[in-house]
Amino acid sequence: MPVERIAAIFAAQPMLAHLGITLGAVAPGRCALHLPRRPALTQQNGFLHAGALTTLADTACGFAAYTLMPDGTNVLTAEFKLNLLRPADGDAVARAEVIRAGRLLSVARADIFCAGAGGERLCATMTATLVCQAG
Amino acid sequence: MPVERIAAIFAAQPMLAHLGITLGAVAPGRCALHLPRRPALTQQNGFLHAGALTTLADTACGFAAYTLMPDGTNVLTAEFKLNLLRPADGDAVARAEVIRAGRLLSVARADIFCAGAGGERLCATMTATLVCQAG
Amino acid sequence: MPVERIAAIFAAQPMLAHLGITLGAVAPGRCALHLPRRPALTQQNGFLHAGALTTLADTACGFAAYTLMPDGTNVLTAEFKLNLLRPADGDAVARAEVIRAGRLLSVARADIFCAGAGGERLCATMTATLVCQAG
Amino acid sequence: MPVERIAAIFAAQPMLAHLGITLGAVAPGRCALHLPRRPALTQQNGFLHAGALTTLADTACGFAAYTLMPDGTNVLTAEFKLNLLRPADGDAVARAEVIRAGRLLSVARADIFCAGAGGERLCATMTATLVCQAG
Repeated sequence: MPVERIAAIFAAQPMLAHLGITLGAVAPGRCALHLPRRPALTQQNGFLHAGALTTLADTACGFAAYTLMPDGTNVLTAEFKLNLLRPADGDAVARAEVIRAGRLLSVARADIFCAGAGGERLCATMTATLVCQAG
Repeated sequence: MPVERIAAIFAAQPMLAHLGITLGAVAPGRCALHLPRRPALTQQNGFLHAGALTTLADTACGFAAYTLMPDGTNVLTAEFKLNLLRPADGDAVARAEVIRAGRLLSVARADIFCAGAGGERLCATMTATLVCQAG
Repeated sequence: MPVERIAAIFAAQPMLAHLGITLGAVAPGRCALHLPRRPALTQQNGFLHAGALTTLADTACGFAAYTLMPDGTNVLTAEFKLNLLRPADGDAVARAEVIRAGRLLSVARADIFCAGAGGERLCATMTATLVCQAG
Repeated sequence: MPVERIAAIFAAQPMLAHLGITLGAVAPGRCALHLPRRPALTQQNGFLHAGALTTLADTACGFAAYTLMPDGTNVLTAEFKLNLLRPADGDAVARAEVIRAGRLLSVARADIFCAGAGGERLCATMTATLVCQAG
């Protein structure tokens, strides 16, 4: 699955632009995505909303899995779990990695870090199950 | 926790307006939220993005739990899991219900339904753990 | 999938006998399993260990899904999440129900109840993803 | 929390002996537990049952978190999620690590490896939320 294909599927998702998510480094089994903090994406305490962090992490997991899927397939999320560890009070980056690439099901993990005064901090972590669907 | 307090915390979350989520019925231990489908919220197949559905369901779970918390407290999400069951190809509604209200931790479930030609269909389901934080 | 097939797959799992789990009511898309409390299955506070409750609920979810799968297939668990709601201080029963039966993936929920002085109480809840594997 | 305390709480859980789990290396924020494969713990295909793997991983997560909790407290599991990645066809070891130690809630991850002809393989992974309870 060439990186160009990831860029194309990224561009085909209006929700990502709606939140301001941008594509970071992509490699086989890995994907990083960035989400600059802005007020429109926050919850009542001024932190990035869990829904914004989930969009970031789910998409990163999906793309990481997709890099290992055959051409002509589609990637779908079956389920994910997100643990929120610290308030997301700055720009966020999700770094996803495939921990099991199956023919049908893949499992990926994404850690979400937030930039702050003291450097990056782990703010949330996701485990996701992705389905490889014949195109 | 009066319903006015739910409306106030709803209004204090810019992310909800950014997605176009609106408040539905609220009762002790229950909350419904609505998300009209629009192109900005979709993924590559034209369905509502999992991140939009998660924002909807997480917020509904949080509010459902919050209705049972004492005045002067704050509600935070510790974690959630979302299972995607069918493509979300229409307007969505999340209906959340508390299944365990503890002094410190509460657990809620939200089912997400999508409106379609044949009526409402269950599209996704979430289980969430919420924390009651002293104000 | 006839009930006889469920009884056969039940009998083929030594772990279930090791914990003392017994088969309850089975119907299309539903399965109940029982776990009598005994000291060997407890944790440090005398309650049923989360691992015992998980074995009960995971198996009930798998059987509930299996009742809807074609003959000649096998059922495997892809993942599950368990929320522990109250101490399990008595005999336990898990009641599982399929909420989405797909050709390949099914999703089931199990609620675990414990018998006590005041009647049954909800002690834990699971959501599981099951895979239908060609035989 | 001294290691002696971990050994004591380990010994106080009859379920662990019932499955044959043994204590491995313990360090601040980390715990390894071992589960030798034996027929009593298997499912219908001869692999270690998901319930046995869950008992192993949940306990490892709880102990890892407990090493960072103050004396006189108790550790409880609030919830966990297990993803099954490959059949567990040999002796298993769970290695848990705390990724967030809070005053009240901690989050730990455990990877479960199985020994086989080709060396250790990752068979399952858990994320768990643990509660620190005043003693």
